Amino acid sequence: MAWRPDELLMLCGYLPFWGASLLVYFGDAEPLLFVPQIEPRDHIPSSLRVEEYPWGDLTCSDPYAVLVSAVAHELAKVRLKPERAGLSAGASRTSLPIQAAEQIPMPEDFAGRMSKLAAKPNRKIQSAFADLYLRKTPEEIQAIRLANQVANLGLKVFLENLQPGIAEAEVAAAVESAIYRQIGQDGIFHSRGWAMVQSGPNSADAGRFNRSSGRRLANGDLVLIELATCINGYWSDLTRTSAVGSTTAAVEEILTTVKDAQRSSIDGVRPGISAAEIDALARKTLAARGLSSFFTHHTGHHVGFRYHDPGFLLAPDVNAKLEPGMVITIEPGAYVPERGAGARIEDNVLVTESGHEVLSSLEENKQP
Amino acid sequence: MAWRPDELLMLCGYLPFWGASLLVYFGDAEPLLFVPQIEPRDHIPSSLRVEEYPWGDLTCSDPYAVLVSAVAHELAKVRLKPERAGLSAGASRTSLPIQAAEQIPMPEDFAGRMSKLAAKPNRKIQSAFADLYLRKTPEEIQAIRLANQVANLGLKVFLENLQPGIAEAEVAAAVESAIYRQIGQDGIFHSRGWAMVQSGPNSADAGRFNRSSGRRLANGDLVLIELATCINGYWSDLTRTSAVGSTTAAVEEILTTVKDAQRSSIDGVRPGISAAEIDALARKTLAARGLSSFFTHHTGHHVGFRYHDPGFLLAPDVNAKLEPGMVITIEPGAYVPERGAGARIEDNVLVTESGHEVLSSLEENKQP
Repeated sequence: MAWRPDELLMLCGYLPFWGASLLVYFGDAEPLLFVPQIEPRDHIPSSLRVEEYPWGDLTCSDPYAVLVSAVAHELAKVRLKPERAGLSAGASRTSLPIQAAEQIPMPEDFAGRMSKLAAKPNRKIQSAFADLYLRKTPEEIQAIRLANQVANLGLKVFLENLQPGIAEAEVAAAVESAIYRQIGQDGIFHSRGWAMVQSGPNSADAGRFNRSSGRRLANGDLVLIELATCINGYWSDLTRTSAVGSTTAAVEEILTTVKDAQRSSIDGVRPGISAAEIDALARKTLAARGLSSFFTHHTGHHVGFRYHDPGFLLAPDVNAKLEPGMVITIEPGAYVPERGAGARIEDNVLVTESGHEVLSSLEENKQP
Repeated sequence: MAWRPDELLMLCGYLPFWGASLLVYFGDAEPLLFVPQIEPRDHIPSSLRVEEYPWGDLTCSDPYAVLVSAVAHELAKVRLKPERAGLSAGASRTSLPIQAAEQIPMPEDFAGRMSKLAAKPNRKIQSAFADLYLRKTPEEIQAIRLANQVANLGLKVFLENLQPGIAEAEVAAAVESAIYRQIGQDGIFHSRGWAMVQSGPNSADAGRFNRSSGRRLANGDLVLIELATCINGYWSDLTRTSAVGSTTAAVEEILTTVKDAQRSSIDGVRPGISAAEIDALARKTLAARGLSSFFTHHTGHHVGFRYHDPGFLLAPDVNAKLEPGMVITIEPGAYVPERGAGARIEDNVLVTESGHEVLSSLEENKQP
């Protein structure tokens, strides 16, 4: 059984609207998708068996109770012993359903209620899920590529808006707007960006958090945008940093060094190289210019089903090796409060059989 | 102990950025707020004692373990028996922290880990929380009023954009953008809108779900916007429906009847009236024109700390009575697929000592 938006997307290509849909596998029988009766139906794959459960305060006060009974009923039909049905394990982060203005996960006691029917998550299910997250199929890669293409439209708007006097939040709002407007283009039914812009001294905070303030851009600023983009359930996670007007040499050095560091890590991406080796490439470039102590986080993570997919990090001491089909971020940064500036450049990189493909290339990044 | 964004807001006026902060009350001692070290500090009330716990993959692989130990250490200091410390109960919905591109709740096993330290939620804690949600303080009402004022700026942009040929998603994007840009004005450090626009036949779905599509507005459409707005953690929940150009009489009737229904319910809001009575006022108006069967949901809910606060609904058979300080939505609708149109009008209404105040009045709504 699975219910998290990212799990449903991986298992059957369906992004829930409300986040209250449940996919149940019954041994060898066809899986069954339970959806609340208020769920839109037009993006549920037609190959799926669907059963609705009641929802709405006028008709049902405890929809989850109905759902639990319905699952029990189906289990009885196929005479499956409860311990054969597994509930997917607890993740500390989940992707967002289409309706994201409120967190509506399954209730906290849902696992408890279901445990009367289903075995606790077992290692087999855990490892199957881990594998689905780590290695993307060609169709999934295409969907993540589309997310990156739409995100690039947003990044273009970011670059166009970098003028002294405009507020961080105004730049971010323009970027998000450009992304939301893509709904209806090229098979895009869901398109959302979360843009966070930090300028001047605020950019030095970007290693700890990303948020937009009312600060107005000024000549000499570094301006950083962190941009999460979700297209039809697939995610891209990008960061750009640019200068407004002319910067001091000390500030300029942060930006050029981070760009170089990112380039060295990206250049190293190929099957068989370890996460620690990719991380070390960026750190070495930063260290050569005395900036390594300002790089306070990992060099990257898996991405695609969520803003941050689970799986190994690209960080020191991580010996896991890259394999074809993995999609990772490469995002070194340096945040230097005493220079009033921070920079991070982040791209999404596919590991291919022969090396890598940067899914998020903008013209400016195609230069070495 | 409390950790959900809406709980922290209610208890100490602090909206967490990451959603991983924990507020702990130790008997009669001052409460202590634990925050991850990456949390911004500038919006934490200065009166609060704050302790940070490590976060960041380079320094700590299990920050929650450190948090649990830190809480245990503090409990030991005050010699408080674990059963005196309560963990807030499971809610099926929670508000969003500032960073909302990913759901980062406490991990699902957090309650389990904490249960070694803290008693399970008891009835006293439950009822204290329920009360905090239901009755807003003057300061909270002012904050919800501000959320409604900003939301109204978004609704103005909605009305300005209602032209044939513009796509639903374009209208919605313009509204959200107007709201995000308010950061930096009038003490606003966090401003977010979730706008969902449905036009023509899509508006007939608005009783089940709200989402924007690429459909372009056409003459004769009803166009509905559902708008959730969060300002500094306080929420408004509004809906407007307007016609594009000239509609048929059958479609026009839906809109005028819904407006009348909403007006009758709002007019009834005063201390002592029951939820069912308010609901009945709207239903009666709809029934008089044969539209009651198209009104498929409740007439309202509490609002302010979340997009949908917990507490009683304004629905048939709910005998709870309104009291001064409550803030509710009044949102009757009628969704008529065979006329290709649906309408809902939703305002946020404060119950006052003498009657009510509509917090979300736009000029057009001040007319009876």
